[in-house]
Amino acid sequence: MWFILVCMSMRVKTEQFTVATSGKGTYEITDKVEAIVRESEVKSGVATVFTQHTSCSLIVMENADPTARRDLEEFFDRLVPENADYFEHDAEGADDMPSHIRMVLTRTSETVPIADGRMQLGTWQGIFLFEHRRAPHRRKIMVTIMGE
Amino acid sequence: MWFILVCMSMRVKTEQFTVATSGKGTYEITDKVEAIVRESEVKSGVATVFTQHTSCSLIVMENADPTARRDLEEFFDRLVPENADYFEHDAEGADDMPSHIRMVLTRTSETVPIADGRMQLGTWQGIFLFEHRRAPHRRKIMVTIMGE
Amino acid sequence: MWFILVCMSMRVKTEQFTVATSGKGTYEITDKVEAIVRESEVKSGVATVFTQHTSCSLIVMENADPTARRDLEEFFDRLVPENADYFEHDAEGADDMPSHIRMVLTRTSETVPIADGRMQLGTWQGIFLFEHRRAPHRRKIMVTIMGE
Repeated sequence: MWFILVCMSMRVKTEQFTVATSGKGTYEITDKVEAIVRESEVKSGVATVFTQHTSCSLIVMENADPTARRDLEEFFDRLVPENADYFEHDAEGADDMPSHIRMVLTRTSETVPIADGRMQLGTWQGIFLFEHRRAPHRRKIMVTIMGE
Repeated sequence: MWFILVCMSMRVKTEQFTVATSGKGTYEITDKVEAIVRESEVKSGVATVFTQHTSCSLIVMENADPTARRDLEEFFDRLVPENADYFEHDAEGADDMPSHIRMVLTRTSETVPIADGRMQLGTWQGIFLFEHRRAPHRRKIMVTIMGE
Repeated sequence: MWFILVCMSMRVKTEQFTVATSGKGTYEITDKVEAIVRESEVKSGVATVFTQHTSCSLIVMENADPTARRDLEEFFDRLVPENADYFEHDAEGADDMPSHIRMVLTRTSETVPIADGRMQLGTWQGIFLFEHRRAPHRRKIMVTIMGE
């Protein structure tokens, strides 16, 4: 009986959810990821969050003061302006190429440790989907939990 | 017999391959990583891709339209210009220090979920080695597959 | 007996340590992470390093020449200047908002492969805590080792 418990201790669980975005900005997904961690019953391991797109991305960011996220969004709008004269890739509009660059400058995957059955985020850390397109989109997020 | 199957379900596999680059630019490695995932026979888990260098990096990027990658490369050439007057670290040439900064702004590791025995990349996502040096290099990529 | 060996091969270990920083800059943590890998006795797998803060981050960087890190720090001071006139989030001072942006542009988690019981960093790669605040801080780093 003890053998079985040991054997089954390490496991993998993958879940997917969708975020409906309404244009450029940051959308918190911490609670959705935490719920998947809780349901997995994994006590110790890691949660890998992954976005399956090339025009939105993931960030871990300050989750208390909304002005921090507004300033971040303004920074990215200035760092990667929509109408750079050298952009050739603009079939989907002025926000097309900047969205790919903003994605490359942030993250497609983020891995967060799990201990005591919970993600070990710091006090002010939240996980956010960073939408880079002006139009509303439905974004798919995959969460893979590995551990015991 | 059933016990043995459960016991052996979680596993780790590490493989390495080399990419020969011919100067600054993006080199797709999706097929090479996917082949390692397939050979591992892991059905559910994650693939971690890692580059063992400080002057190239990894990105997930739009893989359909080559102009998107050209615009991305142009953006990085402008964001991190080669001849910043304050650079002290230039022993290996004008592209030496910019290559480290471009690496820090992108990624050394990327983790992609595996489900149904395949990497769960989105429709337009490809994994690319981003070479930041002008001269040709041989770049080592490690892929670690974990799962069941 | 053979069953038990197979069963127990995959495991997870989580450790935490603190880095005392003395202002903006890069602080190498490679040796501390390597020691945790060694103590875990995991021979093959991955080490995930995670920082539990929103005003410092992690980078993999050239670890031989200190001028490379000084140039990197100068680049970030110029890319994300302290007194952008549009910043609203400045309750903790001029370095408050830039610290969040610099964190988003670098990394919160980094995953490094383990083979032969050692992290597979390249010759010149070091793992660094990148402190973005002027004042000294105590920064928590979590390391999760998974493998066999």
